[in-house]
Amino acid sequence: MPKFEEFKEFQAKISRYGQAIALMHWDLETNAPNNAIEYRSKALGELTEALFKMSVSDQMGEFLDYFSKKENYGELGEFDQAMVRVAKKDFDKFKKLPPQLVRKLAETTSKAGHFWKKAREEDNFSMFEPYLKEVVSLEKEQAEALGYEKNRYDALLDLFEPGMKTDTLRGTTNYLKEHLLPFMQELFENGKEPRYDFFEGDFDVNKQKELSLEALKFMNFDFDSGRMDMSAHPFTTKIGPKDVRITTRYNNKDLRYSLFSTMHEGGHALYELHIPEEFFETSLDEGASMAVHESQSRFWENIIGRGPRFWVFFSKKLKDIFPSFEGISSDELYKGVNIVKKDFIRTEADEVTYNFHIMLRFEIEEALINDRIKVNELPTVWRDKMKEYLGIVPPNDAVGVLQDVHWSNGQFGYFPSYMLGNLYSAQLFSKLKKDLKDYPSQIERGDSAEVLNWMVENVHKYGKMYEPEELLKKVTGETLNPKYFVDYIKEKFSTIYGL
Amino acid sequence: MPKFEEFKEFQAKISRYGQAIALMHWDLETNAPNNAIEYRSKALGELTEALFKMSVSDQMGEFLDYFSKKENYGELGEFDQAMVRVAKKDFDKFKKLPPQLVRKLAETTSKAGHFWKKAREEDNFSMFEPYLKEVVSLEKEQAEALGYEKNRYDALLDLFEPGMKTDTLRGTTNYLKEHLLPFMQELFENGKEPRYDFFEGDFDVNKQKELSLEALKFMNFDFDSGRMDMSAHPFTTKIGPKDVRITTRYNNKDLRYSLFSTMHEGGHALYELHIPEEFFETSLDEGASMAVHESQSRFWENIIGRGPRFWVFFSKKLKDIFPSFEGISSDELYKGVNIVKKDFIRTEADEVTYNFHIMLRFEIEEALINDRIKVNELPTVWRDKMKEYLGIVPPNDAVGVLQDVHWSNGQFGYFPSYMLGNLYSAQLFSKLKKDLKDYPSQIERGDSAEVLNWMVENVHKYGKMYEPEELLKKVTGETLNPKYFVDYIKEKFSTIYGL
Repeated sequence: MPKFEEFKEFQAKISRYGQAIALMHWDLETNAPNNAIEYRSKALGELTEALFKMSVSDQMGEFLDYFSKKENYGELGEFDQAMVRVAKKDFDKFKKLPPQLVRKLAETTSKAGHFWKKAREEDNFSMFEPYLKEVVSLEKEQAEALGYEKNRYDALLDLFEPGMKTDTLRGTTNYLKEHLLPFMQELFENGKEPRYDFFEGDFDVNKQKELSLEALKFMNFDFDSGRMDMSAHPFTTKIGPKDVRITTRYNNKDLRYSLFSTMHEGGHALYELHIPEEFFETSLDEGASMAVHESQSRFWENIIGRGPRFWVFFSKKLKDIFPSFEGISSDELYKGVNIVKKDFIRTEADEVTYNFHIMLRFEIEEALINDRIKVNELPTVWRDKMKEYLGIVPPNDAVGVLQDVHWSNGQFGYFPSYMLGNLYSAQLFSKLKKDLKDYPSQIERGDSAEVLNWMVENVHKYGKMYEPEELLKKVTGETLNPKYFVDYIKEKFSTIYGL
Repeated sequence: MPKFEEFKEFQAKISRYGQAIALMHWDLETNAPNNAIEYRSKALGELTEALFKMSVSDQMGEFLDYFSKKENYGELGEFDQAMVRVAKKDFDKFKKLPPQLVRKLAETTSKAGHFWKKAREEDNFSMFEPYLKEVVSLEKEQAEALGYEKNRYDALLDLFEPGMKTDTLRGTTNYLKEHLLPFMQELFENGKEPRYDFFEGDFDVNKQKELSLEALKFMNFDFDSGRMDMSAHPFTTKIGPKDVRITTRYNNKDLRYSLFSTMHEGGHALYELHIPEEFFETSLDEGASMAVHESQSRFWENIIGRGPRFWVFFSKKLKDIFPSFEGISSDELYKGVNIVKKDFIRTEADEVTYNFHIMLRFEIEEALINDRIKVNELPTVWRDKMKEYLGIVPPNDAVGVLQDVHWSNGQFGYFPSYMLGNLYSAQLFSKLKKDLKDYPSQIERGDSAEVLNWMVENVHKYGKMYEPEELLKKVTGETLNPKYFVDYIKEKFSTIYGL
């Protein structure tokens, strides 16, 4: 008869390996000297293997079996029950995957990643094609091993967005096509593009850093429990409940990159920092899902950071650090960070076009997994869909089908999280506005404490206790409803573009 | 019948845990947010325990027994034999220590460290006394468990300086007392102190960093395989064969601190960077001893960095970064970094007085371990010996017996390494001068490549293959001889102080 404390200690042990691994990855991206990579990879491999072995060990299985038994489960408190439930679900999922499939996937994606990079550099899809074929085939195998009811793609979706189904997604994308696509087309035809020339110039990187730190201060980011560094691709990493680190990147020609990267990652960090400390080193110490996480980063980046209230406050900070903005009004600044563009690149897309970039990827990967299209058809399908949704055709595959790393990594089922994150953030925001009538004037004076607290109380404090749908319903009273997002976009961009 | 490759892989596995631990410590001292410490300590504890268990495991014992057997040992190459020999010695040493003693020592030193800090802050030796008593008693137990032939203190010495004996040390300190003490007294009485006012002022920390980086460049430090950061106490850490990091600290009133800290740690780093890559993740991937390591740091810090040749080259760099030095000659700068002072604090001592700080500590700890003095007598003994050797009496225990962390850590036997490092460096230098007749003009033009290469070929490339005495004899043709150091000091400081 194991004690629950022993189970927690075992989880803590596993987590501690994870903490070391997180630091080792963070260090590679931020500080490690160039030549460190070779031995660091081996050390990472060693600890990752040790962690994985413990995660799927018989000992873990015995703990979970014991505490999942009705009579023992019933004895546990609410949090402990959730901890067992979540851990058991993950454990069972892992156990369904044959070890040789896991190994094969790791090997294949490692090779595929290498050839994806080369293919993109040389704009040569055929270099990547055979490896992608193999990845797709293994992903299908993985979906079969995991099991599903209706659609093979559901099994992969569930890895990133627990409970999400292809049917729901399709309903959502249809709604967006029906209601957002015409609006976007109208905007491109009849909208009046605001000024944004003042955002382009030559901006000292140290001053950009200062500005980013000001934005984090506004967000109540606790610098005693985190830090900000620079890396090629911005990311957030949690090393401890009071050690959450973000990175940003700088473009000296346009300060919007670093500012919004910082607010985006800052949003992820706030989520991690406010998951209760008691959840640390347990299965509950995570966001509810990738998409719920993304709802937090997009909330701070877009709804707050690209919102009119924030710029009433922040324009003074901007001008203090960059006097060249003197004479530009808050309203002009607000509009200048909300330019809508037909662009080939997802990561640089604005709020209006972004979801169409995702839609295209979702439709392609779902069809691939279900054998309705073949890998060699991808460049053509990509171009067709870009034409259909955004009205543009990429001049080459490097800025087309080869632009994202995800498929080479085997992350089929991940892309929808970005879209769902946007939709969740608008749905949460609509509830927040009702609960916090005074929020606009708070943000205008640079006080985000109540807004943050609302997110903590409604989202952060539950960690991974609830699945996304459950959580959304608990907070907003309904499940995913894309109307909130569409209304938010229409209202915001009608004003900005004078429609 | 285990294969040698399996043994190496097992050692590599252990080392990889060590690499993670090294990074986690480095991060705590340099980057980690303030609140990270609590969970980081637990994670460090977890991995350290796992590493220790593997190090003393039956599996390790079986590997070592097998490859130590005459018939198997004979089959191995020179490096592999050394690897087995060194690993076996460490393993046997660990195995002699009863686990409860190891645990007791860890617990006691953790408490003792806490009370040492408080005692020093409040200048109250009696707060530390009971804990130090306990530490001394456990250290004696440890020495008994490890075993020795003649002097109980030898067992502890051997932990830091393999093969070193109390008798040898006493012979050495007697020699220094006989030949260096009168010279020092003469210097204080009749020497003419050079100018050094130009080194005191207000020096921008970023520019000091620039200067430190110039010094590392001069030393051929490879920034693709290492980096320099800031920490409260400078240190060097090896995370990989191509990932060796140093830290420095800045005093904005006096740039000599950061410059010589950097060169000191840089010397440690060069040693680690030039141990052959094939030794990495084996028992040979270390310096020959603490003192041999210190010989390298002191060589670059003192013999090169505080030498006249270096300043011929470096004064231009200094003036480029700090124009306030314009008009001061290279010779004046050289003399200004070689001021001899009667000071209470070991870490700030110059080359002439430094060894007397160590002598005092060595004599005290040897007597403590052999029950010839008691812990409560320490403050008095300390003051008496300071008076005897340096002619000064500390005004309080905070700058007297309480100044160093070592005893609270249980590092009895460590202090002599600092003195031996100084002596070794002079002995090595005397041989280097014979081998590299052209070295002065090389250094004067900022070219340290041949000097470094001499150290690599004579010291670094052997890693931990040889014990210090063996190594010294191999390189210089004789065992430790303090005459080289005394001659070096007399020659250098007679000129500087016009004696």
